[in-house]
Amino acid sequence: MRTLIKNATLIPMTERNLSYRGSLGTEGGKIAFILKEGEALPAHFVPDEVIDAEGMAVLPAFVNAHTHLAMTLMRNYKDTCANLEDWLSEIFPLEDRLTPADVAPAYLLGCAELIKGGCTCYADMYFFQDKDAEAAIVSGIKANIGITLFGGLEESKKRISENYPKLEKAASGAPKGSVLIDVAPHAVYTTSAESYSFGAEFAAANGLRLHTHCSETKTEVANSLKSFGKTPLDYLETTGFLDKAPVYLAHCVHLTDSEIRKAAAKNVTIVHNPASNMKLASGIAPVVKFREAGVNLALGTDGASSNNNLNMMKDVNLASLLAIVGSGNTLALPPYEALEAATKGGAKALGREKQIGTLEPGKDADFIAVDLSGVEISPINDVFSALVYSATSENIKYVFCSGRMLLKDRKVLTVDEASLSAELKRVWKDVVAR
Amino acid sequence: MRTLIKNATLIPMTERNLSYRGSLGTEGGKIAFILKEGEALPAHFVPDEVIDAEGMAVLPAFVNAHTHLAMTLMRNYKDTCANLEDWLSEIFPLEDRLTPADVAPAYLLGCAELIKGGCTCYADMYFFQDKDAEAAIVSGIKANIGITLFGGLEESKKRISENYPKLEKAASGAPKGSVLIDVAPHAVYTTSAESYSFGAEFAAANGLRLHTHCSETKTEVANSLKSFGKTPLDYLETTGFLDKAPVYLAHCVHLTDSEIRKAAAKNVTIVHNPASNMKLASGIAPVVKFREAGVNLALGTDGASSNNNLNMMKDVNLASLLAIVGSGNTLALPPYEALEAATKGGAKALGREKQIGTLEPGKDADFIAVDLSGVEISPINDVFSALVYSATSENIKYVFCSGRMLLKDRKVLTVDEASLSAELKRVWKDVVAR
Repeated sequence: MRTLIKNATLIPMTERNLSYRGSLGTEGGKIAFILKEGEALPAHFVPDEVIDAEGMAVLPAFVNAHTHLAMTLMRNYKDTCANLEDWLSEIFPLEDRLTPADVAPAYLLGCAELIKGGCTCYADMYFFQDKDAEAAIVSGIKANIGITLFGGLEESKKRISENYPKLEKAASGAPKGSVLIDVAPHAVYTTSAESYSFGAEFAAANGLRLHTHCSETKTEVANSLKSFGKTPLDYLETTGFLDKAPVYLAHCVHLTDSEIRKAAAKNVTIVHNPASNMKLASGIAPVVKFREAGVNLALGTDGASSNNNLNMMKDVNLASLLAIVGSGNTLALPPYEALEAATKGGAKALGREKQIGTLEPGKDADFIAVDLSGVEISPINDVFSALVYSATSENIKYVFCSGRMLLKDRKVLTVDEASLSAELKRVWKDVVAR
Repeated sequence: MRTLIKNATLIPMTERNLSYRGSLGTEGGKIAFILKEGEALPAHFVPDEVIDAEGMAVLPAFVNAHTHLAMTLMRNYKDTCANLEDWLSEIFPLEDRLTPADVAPAYLLGCAELIKGGCTCYADMYFFQDKDAEAAIVSGIKANIGITLFGGLEESKKRISENYPKLEKAASGAPKGSVLIDVAPHAVYTTSAESYSFGAEFAAANGLRLHTHCSETKTEVANSLKSFGKTPLDYLETTGFLDKAPVYLAHCVHLTDSEIRKAAAKNVTIVHNPASNMKLASGIAPVVKFREAGVNLALGTDGASSNNNLNMMKDVNLASLLAIVGSGNTLALPPYEALEAATKGGAKALGREKQIGTLEPGKDADFIAVDLSGVEISPINDVFSALVYSATSENIKYVFCSGRMLLKDRKVLTVDEASLSAELKRVWKDVVAR
């Protein structure tokens, strides 16, 4: 399949604030070429489909570097609790009742929702991971699926031995490089030091990456100090978790300055989740300090039950606005840098920097086309401000992953949205009634 | 014209967290009746149009209680400045060059954008106010248009004597009660005490309301203390501004506790502008304190150049999220209260509490229908959380004002969006080049 996107405002994300008018061709799932206006098409290139992207910005698709995809099930459920701990106490007992049949449509609906928000690659941490892989495959997107670890060493070993083969098998049905497996211990307050060490060793031995929650709330930090005499990231370091394999840490709202320097020194990615941090009153992550320290920054939506959606376009906007108001610095996370976190930053976190995250020939053809012609975005004046501050997910007209069109005019092409919505309502009603 | 909206989830905003399944009928621009499911239609009622709102929430249309509508022109223009003062120094010289012909399409585009965000009534403060009224009339929405005052007494008198008759004439073309005139001194740092006093007297004599900026930034507060020995609201009190006519104050980010109590005691409305306050690094308004003091709270988008859109649905979401993270209290501004500020609170601010703001028979038929059936909102679980945290403006399928359908399936019916966008781009290019 060859597709030509013409008359676009191209934003390759290869250079700060670079944009130019041109066209992009895809072939065999890859970006075949990128041309500036006036440059001639390669002689051999006969497209199967031509999209006129006049008035549209074309940029790399978003990478959602932290979510719990099947928590779409619990969206808006008892979500006005006093704090994260109270809310988890509502959610954990319900999660214990979930079956693979419950989460399968929840994963698939989550994938559809990600696509509508311009995202074609996500990092997940949840249960029944084979269903997660199946959803990614059916919907046509990429995923780094974490084998979630909880509790002590024996439980973690059991989780790996049970889930890793199942997930490997499910992932083997995906196009090469689409579904990757990571190891995802939950958090320092649910998972032992031995589990963290074991998970890190397992990741190192198998070439996987490591994904965990870290320093999300003040309560977590206080309890970590009480239990371990160290703040969460410093404590993780003692388990060897930061040194065995590439690490991405979700939240990091309350890192100390020395922990931030440590994250930078150890090439750890911080995945910022602005909507979730706001809604759960977790706090405002020190994004300016992350940037000053040179930390790789990625963005995530967190689960749909603490956001309450999986709309990366919204989190890109919030990341910039929240960093500004949190620091008093209007340049805390300018539009380009917010987009960079949501594209290149996420790709690097997930070990995919050679595959996705920028528009370059040879990379996978994972991109979105955002229509900037509407009244809500006119006049454009600055295409980066327009994308981050004026546009919403409604303006995303096309989403491509590996050269395949997944969204056209706001309709997801790979799943039936209406029947998924209806099914999820039925499933959740049943779970609550059990 | 009679319209029947059936099978809706009705949210009348008359009682906390009240919603029920039912239908709503309009006749002659008013809400004729509201029925719960199973109740029979009035015998005489033969609708001209029936809308099946299955899966949709129907609630009062939003009131945008603070904007500068024609600043759509400057959207995304040099908007990554270090602070409000720097940005105004970019904008003010360009504003000096504007003509009525420039702002006319900017107002009309702004109205279209408001409609797409579910808003049918706005409070404006800008120049060439007759063009503002004309835009409200053409687009079919309601407006409280402020005669903007700047500078000393003579200038303010001149502005009133020049603009009031023009605006009265333009407003006379509107349906009765649609376009109201207010008096809007700009801010304590641009407008003299004599102008404030004069504006208040003029409002009182003519039955108008008063609209001004107040305590938006720390710099404003510091300069007010330096120049007048008082913080802005306390200083306004000395001019008589708070005691002559109903007052609504935009921003109020940095009010002192005693100023907040004063606002409550004097029945002053505070118009909170979360997106603008975040983007310009103005700060986080103490919404919990406003609520505890019993202040009437309304919401505004501010101008499109400091937001960077006019999307009330987005500001409702941000108002709740920002209040939570700013206070550390997850119940700082729950979904119902955020919606209340955007409907009833705004209606009260604009002297329209008997006309709009709730769904009640006899009130104007100003309402929106939000489709909650999409993957990004399923399962619903809590309709208020769903509306505020999961839904976006994309889900607003219908907007009615005075019984007239203004938006259907995301298309504004009263203006040509594409030609307005194109015109605004041309106009702004010309303004910058002058």
